[in-house]
Amino acid sequence: MTTAPLAGQERKAPGRPRNALADSAILHAVLDLLSEGQTVAAISIEAVAAKAGVGKATIYRRWANKEALIIDAVAALKGPVPELAGESVRDDLVTLIKANRSNQHHNYGKVTACLMPELMRDDQIMAGYQAVIEPRREVMRGVLRRGIETGELRSDLDVELTLLMLVGPNMLNGLFAQQPRVPREGFAEALVDAVLRGAAP
Amino acid sequence: MTTAPLAGQERKAPGRPRNALADSAILHAVLDLLSEGQTVAAISIEAVAAKAGVGKATIYRRWANKEALIIDAVAALKGPVPELAGESVRDDLVTLIKANRSNQHHNYGKVTACLMPELMRDDQIMAGYQAVIEPRREVMRGVLRRGIETGELRSDLDVELTLLMLVGPNMLNGLFAQQPRVPREGFAEALVDAVLRGAAP
Repeated sequence: MTTAPLAGQERKAPGRPRNALADSAILHAVLDLLSEGQTVAAISIEAVAAKAGVGKATIYRRWANKEALIIDAVAALKGPVPELAGESVRDDLVTLIKANRSNQHHNYGKVTACLMPELMRDDQIMAGYQAVIEPRREVMRGVLRRGIETGELRSDLDVELTLLMLVGPNMLNGLFAQQPRVPREGFAEALVDAVLRGAAP
Repeated sequence: MTTAPLAGQERKAPGRPRNALADSAILHAVLDLLSEGQTVAAISIEAVAAKAGVGKATIYRRWANKEALIIDAVAALKGPVPELAGESVRDDLVTLIKANRSNQHHNYGKVTACLMPELMRDDQIMAGYQAVIEPRREVMRGVLRRGIETGELRSDLDVELTLLMLVGPNMLNGLFAQQPRVPREGFAEALVDAVLRGAAP
């Protein structure tokens, strides 16, 4: 387990004294447990504390319950919403697709898979998950809408469908990362180019 | 729980005397447990037997272990590989996308989500899952290759990427079926048309 800073946690900093290293170790521990194939239901605060090398009290001081901790771990996994150059729709979409699977945790697909049952079962976790991914999707929608305005994209483009066409294949290729159907190298560029070919005016 | 015949089970029939109604009840029981949010790890043969209203021996007579039973349930969920008209690439792809999420179990997304952790953790289940979905994907590849040959599709089309562009958005929209980003009605047609717009010669 490493203790490099994780991006998601910065969002919670204001006004709250905390130990960034301990927080990072805790979030890493959650992601490690998920990537070992443990479901959310199977993960205990005790197990997280043991793996992070902290006491349970350290966890409970920062997170009210396991659900809140899991959601912060997902945010850390996703990384920060990336800065966009704003020069071309193509470049911005490639940046977003690449950022969608940051390299902060190499078992991204496995972690996501292990979250799935809980997302379907627990409305609180689903709401927290949506709160993490919606700002990222809204940035992508913004890029597509801007492209429609500037004429780079067709005026009658279905923004939500196009969003699914960018996010879905990336997710699927990531889930089965051990045997990706399309090589990782150059995947974001190839996907964006294929989607944009159909989205041209 | 209903006991309507499930499509997947037909594949196993040859030469083996069986009780089709009991088999169907057992497969339905597995899918019901998964759709209640139970992971594969949490499901016991005892629970399946109780839900199906059969004895454990009836299950073990047909399936060597839980993994084999789960894979047959997935096959039942997927339904048979559909017959294609073979007249246009567009019509065949729409047929395949619609069939990909058959109406045999209304909790398709939830069942798939609950399988995910096990797919990532258990090579035997992953291999069984791939054996169920690969013939379906191969049919889709065949439609795309035929389209390239007839000139309906671009000669330099990336078949694997196009496959991901058809399957990924459909999967994503299905997983979050409670709040689909794009309405179900007409989804297959809209997706296929959007993908084909970029795949035209």
